[in-house]
Amino acid sequence: MASMLLSRQLTCCLQQNSRLLVFGHRYISQAAAKIDVDFDYDGPLMKTEVPGPRSRELMKKLNGIQNAEAVHFFCNYEESRGNYLVDVDGNRMLDLYSQISSVPIGYSHPSLIKLLQQPQNLSTFINRPALGILPPENFTEKLKESLLSVAPKGLSQVITMSCGSCSNENAFKAIFMWYRNKERGHNNVTKEELESCMINQPPGCPEYAILSFMGGFHGRTLGCLATTHSKAIHKLDIPSLDWPIAPFPRLKYPLEDFVKENQQEEARCLEEVEDLIVKYRKKKKIVAGIIVEPIQSEGGDNHASDDFFRKLRDIARKHGCAFLVDEVQTGGGCTGKFWAHEHWGLDDPADVVTFSKKMMTGGFFHKEEFRPNAPYRIFNTWLGDPSKNLMLAEVIKVIKTEDLLNNATHAGKALLTGLLDLQARYPHLISRVRGRGTFCSFDTPDDATRNKLITIARNKGVVLGGCGDRSIRFRPTLIFKDHHAHLFLNIFSDILANFK
Amino acid sequence: MASMLLSRQLTCCLQQNSRLLVFGHRYISQAAAKIDVDFDYDGPLMKTEVPGPRSRELMKKLNGIQNAEAVHFFCNYEESRGNYLVDVDGNRMLDLYSQISSVPIGYSHPSLIKLLQQPQNLSTFINRPALGILPPENFTEKLKESLLSVAPKGLSQVITMSCGSCSNENAFKAIFMWYRNKERGHNNVTKEELESCMINQPPGCPEYAILSFMGGFHGRTLGCLATTHSKAIHKLDIPSLDWPIAPFPRLKYPLEDFVKENQQEEARCLEEVEDLIVKYRKKKKIVAGIIVEPIQSEGGDNHASDDFFRKLRDIARKHGCAFLVDEVQTGGGCTGKFWAHEHWGLDDPADVVTFSKKMMTGGFFHKEEFRPNAPYRIFNTWLGDPSKNLMLAEVIKVIKTEDLLNNATHAGKALLTGLLDLQARYPHLISRVRGRGTFCSFDTPDDATRNKLITIARNKGVVLGGCGDRSIRFRPTLIFKDHHAHLFLNIFSDILANFK
Repeated sequence: MASMLLSRQLTCCLQQNSRLLVFGHRYISQAAAKIDVDFDYDGPLMKTEVPGPRSRELMKKLNGIQNAEAVHFFCNYEESRGNYLVDVDGNRMLDLYSQISSVPIGYSHPSLIKLLQQPQNLSTFINRPALGILPPENFTEKLKESLLSVAPKGLSQVITMSCGSCSNENAFKAIFMWYRNKERGHNNVTKEELESCMINQPPGCPEYAILSFMGGFHGRTLGCLATTHSKAIHKLDIPSLDWPIAPFPRLKYPLEDFVKENQQEEARCLEEVEDLIVKYRKKKKIVAGIIVEPIQSEGGDNHASDDFFRKLRDIARKHGCAFLVDEVQTGGGCTGKFWAHEHWGLDDPADVVTFSKKMMTGGFFHKEEFRPNAPYRIFNTWLGDPSKNLMLAEVIKVIKTEDLLNNATHAGKALLTGLLDLQARYPHLISRVRGRGTFCSFDTPDDATRNKLITIARNKGVVLGGCGDRSIRFRPTLIFKDHHAHLFLNIFSDILANFK
Repeated sequence: MASMLLSRQLTCCLQQNSRLLVFGHRYISQAAAKIDVDFDYDGPLMKTEVPGPRSRELMKKLNGIQNAEAVHFFCNYEESRGNYLVDVDGNRMLDLYSQISSVPIGYSHPSLIKLLQQPQNLSTFINRPALGILPPENFTEKLKESLLSVAPKGLSQVITMSCGSCSNENAFKAIFMWYRNKERGHNNVTKEELESCMINQPPGCPEYAILSFMGGFHGRTLGCLATTHSKAIHKLDIPSLDWPIAPFPRLKYPLEDFVKENQQEEARCLEEVEDLIVKYRKKKKIVAGIIVEPIQSEGGDNHASDDFFRKLRDIARKHGCAFLVDEVQTGGGCTGKFWAHEHWGLDDPADVVTFSKKMMTGGFFHKEEFRPNAPYRIFNTWLGDPSKNLMLAEVIKVIKTEDLLNNATHAGKALLTGLLDLQARYPHLISRVRGRGTFCSFDTPDDATRNKLITIARNKGVVLGGCGDRSIRFRPTLIFKDHHAHLFLNIFSDILANFK
């Protein structure tokens, strides 16, 4: 299959020679993937519209066994490299969405290929243990090399999970246990609690809640979904919990022109948070924790000031609620710091920080006081996957060696500057340009325009993602460099100039 | 590390020559793992008590970063092979628990090693896609080779997930959507539904419930946990949902002596199911689905007759509820059929069947009418992991080629016959011997005796697992053969003879 594609691709290369000159494309053979440097392609190369005929054929087949309407196109991951995603029709696209922000150091990174080829790592990939009872010898060591080497300040404990939703679900549970333990003053559990919990009733299953924000996204399992409020399609028809939902600031841009308005908006939201905690307490529903994303991602890349989050942290402490920062999408370095909330400069660290996506494994960090007080309280069969920990250790080594946090800052600046320039030139198409590191976005006039821009960009060789009801979000990998930003900006500038 | 252990192990082999003769141990070098046949060890080999000094040292280290009290011991998976788990102190144990029933074809199976060594598979392990939007070219093909090749009759649709809890959570959601769609008569969604769901309120978030059974275990995320009722420690302090819980039959053994009593007990439970559906409907809480395990596993290996499940299926249909069979622990072949519920001989198939563990990936099968009617309704970033699908395709090939379902039936018969014999000889220690295939279990007089037996067995080279409040469950891999059963029975017979 790969060789068929290779020859198809080579044929096309020759046919499209003129287009090649425009971006200076250069074909790199499959063997090049084994070389440590320069494994990236150097430009998009389009052969068909996307999805192309082969993708359409495969979509039809997949649709026979599951709803495949969300599929954009089918990919050839063997040929995908660095910042470039290659599809099954041989189209090669600059990927600024990176699998919903989940690819840390690009496709087919040589370090990960090498890792897979080392015989001593084989066992980790084929013998998946129940980590909570029978961990492998190097379990602690790999956690220290990977997750703990980048742990947010003050959070010494870590538990791994298989995905983002399970991370938040279990973080909630750790918070509920911590809160109940505080409440019962660390006395022994009563017989009534033990019996009532078995039938889902208080006091064993207390009337606790997690406060979340309108526009937030924290996953799609029932507990998470009760804190997710980004799109109706996620929540429709699913029973939920009566948990409080606060408004999230809706900032006006450019920020420097709306300093006072934005401060008022943030103050209003914070006041509402406190009101909700009190209001729910009155109806015997206790807010045990507050969950927030540093940048609301699915909900439309909604930012708030560092000051807003510092004050929110203070409110949590004041009311005895845990402060849970969901870094599933923002974590891993794309904002220029390893964790987006590190920009805030908190005096008192967050209590719990959840992660997944770019971290390759789900899980959460927490302060020592949130440690489960007995075995099997936070538990499941797999509790993550040591093969993901192994890969993450390698990824973090690459991030450090190649200085990829600073790279995200620099490349992000190039991207943001370029977007601001495009906004100045095309204010009817682009507004509210915003970002931190490469975690950038802008608004379009409406949903239809946004989707049209994404489709055109894809056919010009750039994969973009939408979020909210009219935003386009940038989620490149950490090896996205200045020159990728310029490449994108040139292509997108042409698109905007010709947009009808 | 491996070679150090190797030499430690060889030294010990010589020292323990006399014990070697007892079980006929034979040392197989690491190179043997590459040979397709005979990659199993042929007996336990104990060097220290378990956990040994190296395990204790590692437990202390792990306990610094997370509660490690549930850890039994640390493992050397490189040296583990077939039915034998090797720990970091060089102890080699016959593993009848197989990572809480999650290892399908034993440790370090040559077919999986080969799979990992094939260069064309590399990409699948290092380029993890967002399967719902950008699947790899071979996605449908691998699903057909793996999951769909063993799909329960009548269930043509499959969706993959990362773990058992996410599988059940998403199965619930598919059921709720299906039910609501029926209720609204496939009319368009109202504005009120779209708005109310965003704030967790009806009608957008309807008052739907899943009926579950006391003693059942369906996972630990908040939705799943509302249907889990096996142990208080799983549920204590976690808020829950007011969903109905029916009693599960408590059968008396030996079955042939209590035919009438057991029939009455099952009838009582079924009556209660119907009563609960009606009772909850009266308080405007609609039972959209019923979830049940073919054998309640965590809850104590509680069986019910095939007739009970056929009648339960009829009740579900009669009341318009979906019938969801949770095969996370029972699925994958250990009962002698690929899915335990295939023993029931249902006329009308189950509506939804969830899986994980031995299937290497989580997910669920469902009838076509449960197919989400729009994209992104059942969705998350990863939606499983194609590297697990790849391995599962290989595992299923091995199951078929090596006739491992029939093997489970035969080896299970050898195990069950032996257990019945031990029960006859030691009725004060062993009771209620039961099982299907190798999925066997027995009760001990109490929790303390059970735990003591497990500890003694481990130090004699056999890993066993507990379940319920006094049961021991057998969960060997599918390559557990008659001779492994006899090996275990000999060891355990000695233990019982000497038990004080």
